Amino acid sequence: MSGDQHTAAAGTSTHPKGTNALTPQATLARFREYMVGPSRFMTLLSVFELGVVDALRETPGLTAAQLGEKVGAKADALEQLLFLLVKEGFVAQDETSGGYRLAGLAEVAESDLARALAYMNLIKVTALRQLYYLTESARTGTVVGLKELYGAEGTLYDAVADHQDLNESWLKLMNTVTANIDPWFFANIDIPAGARVLDVAGNTGLGAIHTYRHKASDGLTVTTFDLPDKESKALANFRAEGLEEHLSFIGGNVFDEIPKGFDVVLIKHFLDMFDKDNVLKILQGANASLEEGGQIHILVPVYPEDITQTDNYNVDFFPAFFIGAAMGQGGPQKLSVYQSLLEQAGFKVTRAVTKSAAEIPPDVIPVQAVLSATKVA
Amino acid sequence: MSGDQHTAAAGTSTHPKGTNALTPQATLARFREYMVGPSRFMTLLSVFELGVVDALRETPGLTAAQLGEKVGAKADALEQLLFLLVKEGFVAQDETSGGYRLAGLAEVAESDLARALAYMNLIKVTALRQLYYLTESARTGTVVGLKELYGAEGTLYDAVADHQDLNESWLKLMNTVTANIDPWFFANIDIPAGARVLDVAGNTGLGAIHTYRHKASDGLTVTTFDLPDKESKALANFRAEGLEEHLSFIGGNVFDEIPKGFDVVLIKHFLDMFDKDNVLKILQGANASLEEGGQIHILVPVYPEDITQTDNYNVDFFPAFFIGAAMGQGGPQKLSVYQSLLEQAGFKVTRAVTKSAAEIPPDVIPVQAVLSATKVA
Repeated sequence: MSGDQHTAAAGTSTHPKGTNALTPQATLARFREYMVGPSRFMTLLSVFELGVVDALRETPGLTAAQLGEKVGAKADALEQLLFLLVKEGFVAQDETSGGYRLAGLAEVAESDLARALAYMNLIKVTALRQLYYLTESARTGTVVGLKELYGAEGTLYDAVADHQDLNESWLKLMNTVTANIDPWFFANIDIPAGARVLDVAGNTGLGAIHTYRHKASDGLTVTTFDLPDKESKALANFRAEGLEEHLSFIGGNVFDEIPKGFDVVLIKHFLDMFDKDNVLKILQGANASLEEGGQIHILVPVYPEDITQTDNYNVDFFPAFFIGAAMGQGGPQKLSVYQSLLEQAGFKVTRAVTKSAAEIPPDVIPVQAVLSATKVA
Repeated sequence: MSGDQHTAAAGTSTHPKGTNALTPQATLARFREYMVGPSRFMTLLSVFELGVVDALRETPGLTAAQLGEKVGAKADALEQLLFLLVKEGFVAQDETSGGYRLAGLAEVAESDLARALAYMNLIKVTALRQLYYLTESARTGTVVGLKELYGAEGTLYDAVADHQDLNESWLKLMNTVTANIDPWFFANIDIPAGARVLDVAGNTGLGAIHTYRHKASDGLTVTTFDLPDKESKALANFRAEGLEEHLSFIGGNVFDEIPKGFDVVLIKHFLDMFDKDNVLKILQGANASLEEGGQIHILVPVYPEDITQTDNYNVDFFPAFFIGAAMGQGGPQKLSVYQSLLEQAGFKVTRAVTKSAAEIPPDVIPVQAVLSATKVA
C-alpha cells in the first residue's frame, strides 16, 4: 500500500485559496474549453466506433479515401473527424502522402484502451443525451432525461432492467470498475476469521464472491443484501463459483431495515448515489443491525478536502452524472464528510484511506476511499 | 487591421511535427479530459440556467440552503454542482459560513457572459444530444440525431423552420456571430462605388443590410440570393430598414444556377457547411455568374495550416457539429484549401486574411478568414 494517502488533505492545488486568481480573460478561455467538451468527446469516441483506429493499427499509412473505403464512411467526414486527433497527437498525418498512422495511440496498451473505451461508452449511452435535462433534474430531484428519452420513471439502476443499451454500457463499466478497485479495497480492510459478513446493496453477488476469494477463512460466510429481484441471479452466481455453502442472499430494502446477525457490514459502490440525509439513514440502519464492536467498511469515491485540487476528477463528472443521468440526487462527498456521517450514525472511524492519484491509471475518473469504523456503545 | 495574420501559416504549435511526443500516460490523461467534457459543460451551463449566478451576483454569501430556497432547487444538488465551479475558481466558498460568492465570474462583463451563454445554449440545444449519433451520421452523411430526436429529415437549417427550440438557439447565436464578425469582414474587403453586389445564401437579408450600411455608395445595390421561401421575410427586413430602393431578393438554389449580372459576389457563413466537392461546385457557379474581372469575397472559419496549433478551436468543434448536428457533411478547411478551390474554380486569389486569435474574445470558437479573388480569363 505504499503510495496511499493516509490523510484526507493530501494533494496540491493550483489555486491560492480565498483569492480570486482568475482574470476575466482566463475565465472566458476556460469557458471555451468547456464548450468544446461535448464535441471533443464524441469526435474521439466516434473515430474509435467507426473502426478507424483498428484500421490504422492494421494498416498504417491509409489515406482518408482508403480509410473511407475500409470502414464504410465518406472520406471527407473521416478527414474532418481526424483533424482533432492529429491536433492532439493521437494520430499523425504524412504531409506528402496524406496517409495517417497512429502516433500517441500506437503505444497505449490494448487493456488500457479497452478500459477507457468502456468508460467513454458509459458516458455516451447513459449521460451525453440525458445531461441536456440536468437543470430540470436538479430542480425536480428526478432523472428527467431517462423519462424523456426512455419513458422511464425512476433511476438509471431501475432503467437498466428494461433497456438493453443502458444495461450493456453500465454492466461493462461496473465490471471494469469492480475488477480494478476490489483488490485494493480488500487489501485495505481486515475481516476476522470466521466472521459473518453482510454486503449491503450487493447486487447479484459479485461483492460477496470477491469477499470470499480475498478473505477466505474457516467459517467465513458472506450474505448479499439487495432487492428481492436480485436473488435468483445472485444464487446462480454463487453456485457457478461453487461457493453456495459460504454465500447467501437476503432480499430487502436498505431504507427499511438492514438484517441483523452479522459481524461485519460492507457498503461498496453505493453511498455516493444518495444525498447526505439518505447516506446518514443508511449508516444508521447499518449501525442498528450490528452489535457493539461490529465493523463497517465503506468503499466510495471522495472529493479532495481542498476542492480546488486539480488532479481529482470526481468533481468534474459525478455531480452531473448522479443528478442528471443516474439518480436525480447524490454525488460523492469529502472523506471528512463521510467520517462525520459515520460518527453521527454511532460509529468510531478507525481508518480512512484515499487511493493515491499516482496509483490510478490516468484515464480513470473515480478516486476512491476506504473508511473502516466500529460500532460504539 | 493591425494584428491580423496576413499569411496562412502563422501561429505556434506545441507539438513537434512528425514526432510522436505523447507518451501512453499522456494520451490516457488526455482521454480523461475528453471524458469529463460533457459533464463539465452541462454542470457549468446548468448553474447559470438554475439562476445561481444571478442570485450570487445579487446576494453574495448565500449558502447552498439559501440558494436552494431562492432558485427552487434542492440544496444538496446545488452544492454538488457548485463543487466544480469552486474547483475552477469561477465561484468561491467561505470555509466557515459555507456561503458562496462569485470569484472569477464576478469580473466578467455582462456582454461577454451573454455571448458565451448564447454559444453554450446553441451547443446544448443543437448538438449535445444529437452528437450521440455522430458515428451513424458520419456513415450515412445524414444528421441522424435530428431524425431520432425531432423526426426531422434534412439539415439543421431545414429543422429550424419547424422546431422553435432549435430556431431560437440558432438564431440567437447567428445574430451574435454576425454582429461580431461582419464589421471585420467589411473592413477587409473593397466594394467599388456603385457596384452590383450579390449576397449568396444571404438568408433573410441581414448580410445585404450590413453590406449597404458598411459600403454605401451612389448606385450601390445588393441582392440577397437564397431559397424562395426567404423572400417575404427578406423584403420585409429591407423595408423595415428603409433600404428597399437599394436591396432586392432573388429566389433560387445555389447548386442550380447563381444569378448573372453582378460585379461582386459575397459568400458568408456558408462554405463551411459543405464537403469540398460541393464547395467547388458553389465556387464554379459563382465564377460562371460573373464577368471577367468580377470579384468574389468569402467569409469562412478556417483551420490553421499547422493543424496541431493549439489556439485554434475550430478543429475541436466544427467537424462534429457539421457532420453530427447540422449537415451530415461539411466542416471548415485550411485557408490554403479554400485558395486552391478558388483557383480550380477559375479565380485568382488577391487577398487571404485570417483573423488573429489575439483579436478574438477568448470564449469564441470560430477563427474566421476573408478570401478575396477575381475571375480570370
